[in-house]
Amino acid sequence: MQIYADNAATTKTSRTAIDAMLPYMDQIYGNPSSLHSVGQAANEALTKARQEIADCLGCEAREIYITSGGSEADNQALRSAAYFGAKKGKKHLISTAFEHHAILHTLDQLKEEGFEVTLLDVHENGYVTPEEVAAAIREDTALVSVMFANNEIGSVQPIAEIGAVCREKGVLFHTDAVQAVGHIAMQVKAMNIDMLSLSAHKFHGPKGVGVLYARRGVPLRSLINGGAQERGKRAGTENMPAIMGMAAALKEACANIPKNTEHLTAMRDKLIQGLSKIPHSVLNGDPVKRLPGNVHFCFEGIEGESLLLLLDAKGICASSGSACTSGSLDPSHVLLAIGRPHEIAHGSLRLSLSEENTMEEVDYMIETIPQVVEYLRNMSPVWRDLQEGRRTYVIQ
Amino acid sequence: MQIYADNAATTKTSRTAIDAMLPYMDQIYGNPSSLHSVGQAANEALTKARQEIADCLGCEAREIYITSGGSEADNQALRSAAYFGAKKGKKHLISTAFEHHAILHTLDQLKEEGFEVTLLDVHENGYVTPEEVAAAIREDTALVSVMFANNEIGSVQPIAEIGAVCREKGVLFHTDAVQAVGHIAMQVKAMNIDMLSLSAHKFHGPKGVGVLYARRGVPLRSLINGGAQERGKRAGTENMPAIMGMAAALKEACANIPKNTEHLTAMRDKLIQGLSKIPHSVLNGDPVKRLPGNVHFCFEGIEGESLLLLLDAKGICASSGSACTSGSLDPSHVLLAIGRPHEIAHGSLRLSLSEENTMEEVDYMIETIPQVVEYLRNMSPVWRDLQEGRRTYVIQ
Repeated sequence: MQIYADNAATTKTSRTAIDAMLPYMDQIYGNPSSLHSVGQAANEALTKARQEIADCLGCEAREIYITSGGSEADNQALRSAAYFGAKKGKKHLISTAFEHHAILHTLDQLKEEGFEVTLLDVHENGYVTPEEVAAAIREDTALVSVMFANNEIGSVQPIAEIGAVCREKGVLFHTDAVQAVGHIAMQVKAMNIDMLSLSAHKFHGPKGVGVLYARRGVPLRSLINGGAQERGKRAGTENMPAIMGMAAALKEACANIPKNTEHLTAMRDKLIQGLSKIPHSVLNGDPVKRLPGNVHFCFEGIEGESLLLLLDAKGICASSGSACTSGSLDPSHVLLAIGRPHEIAHGSLRLSLSEENTMEEVDYMIETIPQVVEYLRNMSPVWRDLQEGRRTYVIQ
Repeated sequence: MQIYADNAATTKTSRTAIDAMLPYMDQIYGNPSSLHSVGQAANEALTKARQEIADCLGCEAREIYITSGGSEADNQALRSAAYFGAKKGKKHLISTAFEHHAILHTLDQLKEEGFEVTLLDVHENGYVTPEEVAAAIREDTALVSVMFANNEIGSVQPIAEIGAVCREKGVLFHTDAVQAVGHIAMQVKAMNIDMLSLSAHKFHGPKGVGVLYARRGVPLRSLINGGAQERGKRAGTENMPAIMGMAAALKEACANIPKNTEHLTAMRDKLIQGLSKIPHSVLNGDPVKRLPGNVHFCFEGIEGESLLLLLDAKGICASSGSACTSGSLDPSHVLLAIGRPHEIAHGSLRLSLSEENTMEEVDYMIETIPQVVEYLRNMSPVWRDLQEGRRTYVIQ
């Protein structure tokens, strides 16, 4: 048995997406900017795909800017708000301590360039509150950026409420919705979202393509200069196969949210219940307000990387946190942000399910993971110290 | 008959490239940063693809940075050289007047940010000389960026000679080789190239992927911040299918350069000979030192856009210049740079051939294009004025 439970890192591209891509590789392969019929056929498809994406998000086609993925969209959103904010003397940016590094590292750069950044603390259950956002907003705040759902612990933020606060205070609001789009129903207009980032490969679309939604009137600055593609806001020949695949995958994902959510939450809750029985384990993130496919635990006395390798040998593909930071020896900034101490943050496990996972797989994981945790603990000097009272348990 | 003669805008993705991509969509679909076997299988393929790309360019695998395309690579090369140059007090950049807009628009932004830019004039045949580059280099020059081959008129620059000048003077040298890679043999080390941009969809690879080669020791700055992909220089989950397709297409293109060049130059030279017979027409770019598949003419008294639409109706897909600027009413900056006056720059036609084109297609174009030009001239008041002596011919 091989179980792929790392869908937050990336998903298998769906048949729907692949079928939507293929004709644009060697049949309708023109450059949409070309005036001839081969180019214009591509251009018509692009117009249709842009409208489909807009329909899924509840916005207008002209508010959709195609990017090479979620990281680029995040970078462009922050850089745009900073650039145009600075022109009006607004050099204060608000975000949270547990954003993706595409946000945090861009904010680090902006700090070096003279911007002031407030990172909101995150509560133990993995959320920030609209009240805290409101309290942080100042006269010179150019942007609030709060992720829709956390990529490690899966906690879903009160985005509509934060959107309402920002709109009322007249501050731009961006959300990194890379983990949420296609998994949670959302309408950007109704939620007062000014900018939103998404990435196709997180919902069974192709890799290498994403979207920055920017509400009409929100000024964007090009990150990549050159041709006049994307209404002058993103240069480079349009990646037509990927765009077609993204639109098809998004349409399918959004249509199936109710059905998938039911299946996913049933699997998720069974997994949470099963793994909670492991002694000295703790669930990270809110038990209810979390992504339907996300399960995230810390197990005291073990090391996450060894856990992953042994699970892999047992046919379970999982992650300790974000794929983007694998290989790093630092504990997850997300776990530190919700107050987990270093010594247990190292022993983390993320299982991220897709609708293709089954209850049989869940049963196998509930049977296997406790055995592997126990095996590792038996080999661990830290665990021996804990058992023999030379150290104190953090997780009671 | 439908003839695709717009391969400089984009090419049909080859069967080789598609076959290389497909397994990485729904079989080896893991995130290369993931520690489990599905991720590690992708990671191994990535390592192999990077080596293949390096072998084609004559450099080391660790000097290859994957980007979303040529525009991104150009932007990152310029921004990196500017950023690190400024740290050493070097705020002067040298380029040419007929670069792609990915270069020129980035330079415009850098000028706004306090850099000084020298754009070298271009000779009528479409080239700059190493001597002129040498003369422009100053103590505070951070970078020389000269395109390998022009995207409109196809003229090939003396890159190795310019590289030698820059190396001797200790100045970084970047080349936008988007139109040249896969079409002209090149070895970056032997040519003293410090940075090079390429785009896969110009040599029958997939859209949405490219490379920035940067010689070891040349510092890069991230344009897109986030995860630690591409050794910390380009964030975002690796676009595995596209990378595999790019490597396969590049390998195939480079292996076939001798064979393709023979076929392409034969078609190109026949086309040039045939279209030169149209009265008051002029070939743009050097007749010999040009891309093997590039034919570019100005026809006096007609308007390029009408010509393209009529040719399209006759089954010929062509371009007036760069696809990236189609729809713009301004005459091509490339044609102005080589000294063509406005009134004839508007009447331009670019035919860009690939190895899939045939001599039969060339014959059809030689038969059809003069008829269409004549038809348009007969409807043109400008042409009537020229014929009746109320205006003077520019092209004798």
